[in-house]
Formats: sequence, structure tokens, C-alpha cells
Amino acid sequence: MSDLVDQLREGLPEAAVVADPDVTAAYQQDMAGFCDSAPPAVVVFPRTVEEVQHVMRTATRLRVPVVPQGARTGLSGAANASAGAIALSLLRMDRILELDPVDRIAVVEPGVVNAELSRAAARHGLSYPPDPSSWESCTVGGNIGTGAGGLCCVKYGVTAEYVLGLDVVLPDGRLLRTGRRTAKGVAGYDLTRLFVGAEGTLGVVVAAVVALRPAPPPQLVLAAEFPSTDAAGAAVCAVMAAGHVPSLMELMDTTTVRAVNAMAQMGLPDSTAALLLVGFDSLDPTSDLAAVGELCREAGATEVVPAADSGESELLLEARRLALPALDRLGTTMIDDVAVPRSRLGEMLAGVARIAEEFRLTIGVCAHAGDGNTHPVVVFDADDADESARARASFDAIMALGLELGGTITGEHGVGLLKKEWLARELGPVGLEVQRQVKAVFDPLGIMNPGKLF
Amino acid sequence: MSDLVDQLREGLPEAAVVADPDVTAAYQQDMAGFCDSAPPAVVVFPRTVEEVQHVMRTATRLRVPVVPQGARTGLSGAANASAGAIALSLLRMDRILELDPVDRIAVVEPGVVNAELSRAAARHGLSYPPDPSSWESCTVGGNIGTGAGGLCCVKYGVTAEYVLGLDVVLPDGRLLRTGRRTAKGVAGYDLTRLFVGAEGTLGVVVAAVVALRPAPPPQLVLAAEFPSTDAAGAAVCAVMAAGHVPSLMELMDTTTVRAVNAMAQMGLPDSTAALLLVGFDSLDPTSDLAAVGELCREAGATEVVPAADSGESELLLEARRLALPALDRLGTTMIDDVAVPRSRLGEMLAGVARIAEEFRLTIGVCAHAGDGNTHPVVVFDADDADESARARASFDAIMALGLELGGTITGEHGVGLLKKEWLARELGPVGLEVQRQVKAVFDPLGIMNPGKLF
Repeated sequence: MSDLVDQLREGLPEAAVVADPDVTAAYQQDMAGFCDSAPPAVVVFPRTVEEVQHVMRTATRLRVPVVPQGARTGLSGAANASAGAIALSLLRMDRILELDPVDRIAVVEPGVVNAELSRAAARHGLSYPPDPSSWESCTVGGNIGTGAGGLCCVKYGVTAEYVLGLDVVLPDGRLLRTGRRTAKGVAGYDLTRLFVGAEGTLGVVVAAVVALRPAPPPQLVLAAEFPSTDAAGAAVCAVMAAGHVPSLMELMDTTTVRAVNAMAQMGLPDSTAALLLVGFDSLDPTSDLAAVGELCREAGATEVVPAADSGESELLLEARRLALPALDRLGTTMIDDVAVPRSRLGEMLAGVARIAEEFRLTIGVCAHAGDGNTHPVVVFDADDADESARARASFDAIMALGLELGGTITGEHGVGLLKKEWLARELGPVGLEVQRQVKAVFDPLGIMNPGKLF
Repeated sequence: MSDLVDQLREGLPEAAVVADPDVTAAYQQDMAGFCDSAPPAVVVFPRTVEEVQHVMRTATRLRVPVVPQGARTGLSGAANASAGAIALSLLRMDRILELDPVDRIAVVEPGVVNAELSRAAARHGLSYPPDPSSWESCTVGGNIGTGAGGLCCVKYGVTAEYVLGLDVVLPDGRLLRTGRRTAKGVAGYDLTRLFVGAEGTLGVVVAAVVALRPAPPPQLVLAAEFPSTDAAGAAVCAVMAAGHVPSLMELMDTTTVRAVNAMAQMGLPDSTAALLLVGFDSLDPTSDLAAVGELCREAGATEVVPAADSGESELLLEARRLALPALDRLGTTMIDDVAVPRSRLGEMLAGVARIAEEFRLTIGVCAHAGDGNTHPVVVFDADDADESARARASFDAIMALGLELGGTITGEHGVGLLKKEWLARELGPVGLEVQRQVKAVFDPLGIMNPGKLF
């Protein structure tokens, strides 16, 4: 193993190659549950493209697996290391290289924290929309690797829609430039998008051209309480069918509402079967909220509370922000990420409730309702083997339900280790075979984050 | 050759397999100039996925090249046939299979005409934004193959951004499903985007799930006349830097303005060096136009004419719509499609004027200015060999200039036959090699629209 360390140090500063077991143990996993991991042989912290190339050339020569890592806030095990591997941390490549308000782009290194980019954009009156809940710590490179989403997606889309071009170090050390820095471009196959969501299995993203948007006006939010998840699902459909363009549309089920109440005494009635939050950052959010409030009432909402200003909107959103911490207090949690066509949202919520009953578990659901993207959170006692097994089984049952409803096993968290058996089921044999062949083009030796995705 | 026809007829109705030389000659090319073509051996008109699979299996067995075709309105020769090939026309697969206002998607066959989809969406209060100028005749499948754009792109983006999932028949006849019908999804590599803009070189798109948007309010347009292209370029930058989100931002240079005047007596002053059209489909377009008008004046506009209503807006847009027909009256035309970062638009326009002078040619420029996507139209006498050679050389000089300015050789028309030498230059050796390897995954025998792109 010291061979590996020695050869890595030939092209990296000594301090950037760390084999200390305390450090390798600290870099062994991301935030997913139920996923194997082991301390890597070594963690490297390159600062330049050339240093990344040196790492990859060394790995290729020695046939050592490489696991690219951002902030390791991912939820699918895609950044988990294995014994003998090089953990390639991109955290020190954290510069914003360029930010251009006329072209509305930024050029960033992969280790730039999402919130740092957002703040830098804001200083120019711009925004970088993708806002995963870990945005204060997760990196843009990690967002690209996982194809991250967030609350913004219902209006502004996911990470993929903001990546215009990439610099990628391939497993053999070659530098590949994809895409463009222009608003449009169709020269050749779109390799940029191939790397977004590829979970580091094709190469190492070392720079990205991302699109920025003008900062939207402040958002105004409405909360609506429903006596059933069916009614809430119907309200979501009615709002979308009426042509509204909300900037946020989040749903919490009764389990989640109660957990939040228990944690923060927010005064939400325990009788609420579903709480829907709808936001608008339009020119006239007050009218938008009035129209949406009416649609919610027609769908059966028992209470509709539109915020009068951004302060009140923030208070309403606080309930959503506390959802995961509140569920975490109930036990070990495992968050799923199944997206269905939004017209099937009601069925999905009803199905998850049935699964919770069948497996005798607490499952709280928050959902990016406007996208049909549900996050059922399975709560269990990790010290109870039987309950843990039921938790894992319920997690799978939720994915099966999602596929049955015409959905996908992952809307925004990715496949990683957690869902690789399920990916085959979603893609089918032709899809899986083609994907494996595409992988082999970029990584013929199979050293690039092996065991992930497939 | 009758072997080929006989074997094709084993899985297709007799009338769907046409070897009549009048027909094969009629299906030999798209609308690009300077590109080779020859009548194909046979034209097939499948109506079902199974029939397309039969065509591809037959082609694979007999090692016969297949050229997929939509309405053949493309401008790069990507749909041009070669001797001995099967021209695979998708025009009869023209059904809208589904249109869902809640999920805001349509599922369409490839031969659906762009305008038909737009009208079907409009009946549900929705829109399908991509609007290439051939939208009344071009097909959605062709738009996907070329990665088509249009006037809408500055606000609504290109075709790629509206394609959520595809059914693709691979060269060996297998059916591949990519993507999803949910708003979000990150399960596996994004193969959907790989097929968008692939010009039929990887497989045959037989169905697409496309995203729709709520129909926007009517657009209000402003026209501004500038004494120099520099000033017009500066106005574009000022508008974008100020955070405006126009729904249209088109520029015509003096050559184009004069040609339009000559054709339609629109009363545009011949002294205009550049005419800029800016549209807004926002909630308050009048204020937006007022603010943009002010920025245009600050940048040196000599006249600013905001439309008061949609009727007046249509009149202003008429000038843009007539641009290509007006230039066509001056001689044979060849339209280029170079996109640069919008901050470099002024330099691009100045450079094209220099190239026109250097090659002693008339070159009129229209541009999707908001995207930095210029369409220099080279006008020449096709019967004059020297002038034709200069036209071709100027066309290349324009691409070289675009690359020099950090742009791309094609913003929305594609590579096809016309720009394949240039693609290698834009991609560089690593990019080109990887793209070829990706092609080989899908089409190991090289029968899928061979000679295009690379």
C-alpha cells in the first residue's frame, strides 16, 4: 500500500495524500443508511486539474479503484469507499473561477459549496436555483454527480438543467471538455448530461460551467390543511391543471406533521392528514395565493392560511424545514426518493400508508408535491433486527409501488449502492446493457467508483 | 436491390416500401446547401414500432445504411440519403398518443408536426415552446434529431429541455426506453439527452415524452434602431445584465433590414445598422418594454418603438419573419448557425462584416441575440464557381470566428454533413474519440446514418 502512497506523492504535495487510519475512516461514507463501506487505503486532496490527472494515472497504472467525493452529504452511498480504494476528495478545489452577469454563467471548481455559489450569484442579482436541503454544506460537484434537486425544482428544475459544460478527468488521466459556455449549442452528442447523475462512475468532474438566472422576487407562501391525502393530491392536480407556476409546492403527511408538532410545538392540528405548502415568487403572489387557496378549498382543505409577507412565509416554511429533523427524533430513519407522475401522487401517498401498516412501521412522508417526488421516511429501531429487516423491506415496497405507478426509483438522490438492484428493474435488460456499455467506453478497467449504480 | 425491397416487405405493407426512382429522388435531401446526397435504394414509411424494428433488423442483416428522416427541413444535410441506403421516413408515425394537463406532458410519435403539437397543447391552455422557423412543417422527431431551437429559446430553452423520455429502436432492432414521464428522475445515465441532437446516428426515435408549459400571456414587442452593430450588441448586454427575461430578442443587421425593405416596403430607414426586436410575455410587458427601451436609448438607439398591443407586435415581428425570404431573393443563400457567449455578440457581428468585405460577398445577419446565436446568411451566385467557392470559404471563416470567440459551430441547426470537419475542431481529439466510441456502443456496424456528424 505504501507503493500507492509513494506514487501518489510523486505528483501531489505530501499533505494532500493521507493514509492515517483516523482520516481514512472519516472519509469512508456518505449519509446513506443500509450501505456497505470501508476505510479507503488513502484519501487525496488535489487542488489542481493536473493533480487529479496524476491521481487517475496512478490509479490506472496500479489498477486501484477511485471513489470521488464531495461533502459526502449524499443519500445513496455513491460516495462510500471500499477497502484498498483511493478516496478522491474534491473539497479543496473550491474556487469560483468566473461569474458573468451578461452571459449569466459561472465557472466553478467541483468543491464549491452550493450556498457559496448561491451567495456569489446573489451579489450580482442572480441566483443558482438548485437547492438540495444540504445546500449549506454540499458541493456543486457532488450535486452534479448525484443530479441533485431541491425545493426549487417545481419551477426551476434540477441540477442537470443548469450544467452547460464540464471539464472531466477520465480514468486514464485524459482531460475531456464537454458542452459549451454559450446559451445554446448542439455540436455532437450531449456528453455533459451523461456525467450529470453518473455518480462519479465515468470520470472526475474538475470544472463546470453552470447557468445562472436573474434572482426572483421574494416568495409568498400559503399553507393548507387537508382531511385526507387524497384531497391534498387532488388539490395539487387542480393547481397544476389550472396552469399555475408555483415556486414551491411541498406536502407533509400526518405522521410528519405530528413529529414536527412534537418537536417544535407549531400548533398544527393533529387531525391534519396532509399539510400542503404552496409558494409563488411571481410579480403578484398575493393573487396567485388567493386563486390557489380557492382551489385548495374546493378540493376539501379545512384551513387555508396565506402569508401576508416574507416573514410569515418563512414561519410556514419552518414546518417543512423541521420535517426531517423531527422524524429523526423518532428513531433511525431511512429516506426514500420515489417520483411519480404528479397525477398519481394521491395513490402514492395512500400506498405508502398501506405499506406502513403492512410492515408495522412509522413512515412519514414529505414530498416535493409539485414534482410528484415523494420522500417517504421509514422510522425504525436499528437495534431491533426484525424491525430493521422490515424497514429495509418497506423501503423496497415503496420503490415497487413507485414503478407500478409509472414513476422512478429515484427523483433526485441517485442510485449509489442503495438502489442498484432496483436500477436494473427500472431500466430493463436493454437499458441496463446499453448503460453498462457506455460505462465501459469511459472506464474500460472498471476503476471509477466501482460497484455503484450497477 | 430487389432482395432488400422483398425483405423489407416481409414486415411492412407493400405501399410502405417504395423503390420508384421518382420517390427515392424526392427523399434524397434536406434543405442544406453544399452537401452531397443521392437517391436512396428505397424509402420506407412505417406506421408502428414493430415496423421500424423490422426495417432495422433487415438493415442489420443486410448491412444496409439507414437514414432516418422527418420533414427534411433540416439545414445541415443530416437527413441526406446516399446511394444504396434505406431512407426511413417517420412522417406516417404522426399520432399524439397522450396529452396530460396535470402532468404537463405529451407522448408523441416522431412524425407529429411541431405546430400540430403546439395547437393540441394550446387547446389545454398549454404550450410546447420549441419553435424553429419551419414549425408549420417540421416534425418533433426531426426537432429531437437536430436539437432544434427557435425564437423562444432566450426564455424557454431548446428542444432538449423538453424531452423527458424516449423510445428508440436501436440499429439491431432492440427497443430501448430512456428517461421517464415524471418531472424528475436520476436513475442511471441520461441516455435521453444523448439521442437529442444525435441526428439519427445512434438509433431511431419512435416515441417521445415531452414536457409542456402553461401557455404564456400574449407577447408585447419593441423595435429599436441602432447606428452600429456595436451599439446593438451593447444594448443586448445591458438588457441581460439588468436581469430582464425577454421572451424574444432578435437582431437584424443592415443588409437584412435593406433586403426586407426591398421586399416588403416596411419603411425601415436604410441608415439602420442594426434593428433589435425585444419581446416580453410577462404580467406587465408595458413596464418591461419601457425599461428595455430606456436601456436601448442609453446604448445609442436612434429610435425606439414599443408596440401598444399584440397587433402592433405582430407587425414588428413581420420584419423578422421576412428576413430569410428577403435575403433569398438576393441570390442563392447559405445559412450559418454560430452561437457565441452573448457578451461577445458585438464582436461576432463586426467580424462577420469584415468577412463579408474580405470575401466580397453579401452576408446578412439575423440573430437570436438573447442567446448569442447568430445566423449569418451568405448570399451568392451559385452559377459563378468563384463566388460559390468564396461563399463556402466565408462560411468556414464565420465558424472559425465563432470558435475564436468562445462559441460553438452550431447553436441549433446541427452538424450533419455540412460541418463535420468542423466538429472535430470544436471537440478536440479526446472529445472526438470519446464521441466515436459512444457511437460504436449503439451502432457497432456503422449502419445508422453513416457519414453524418463525424
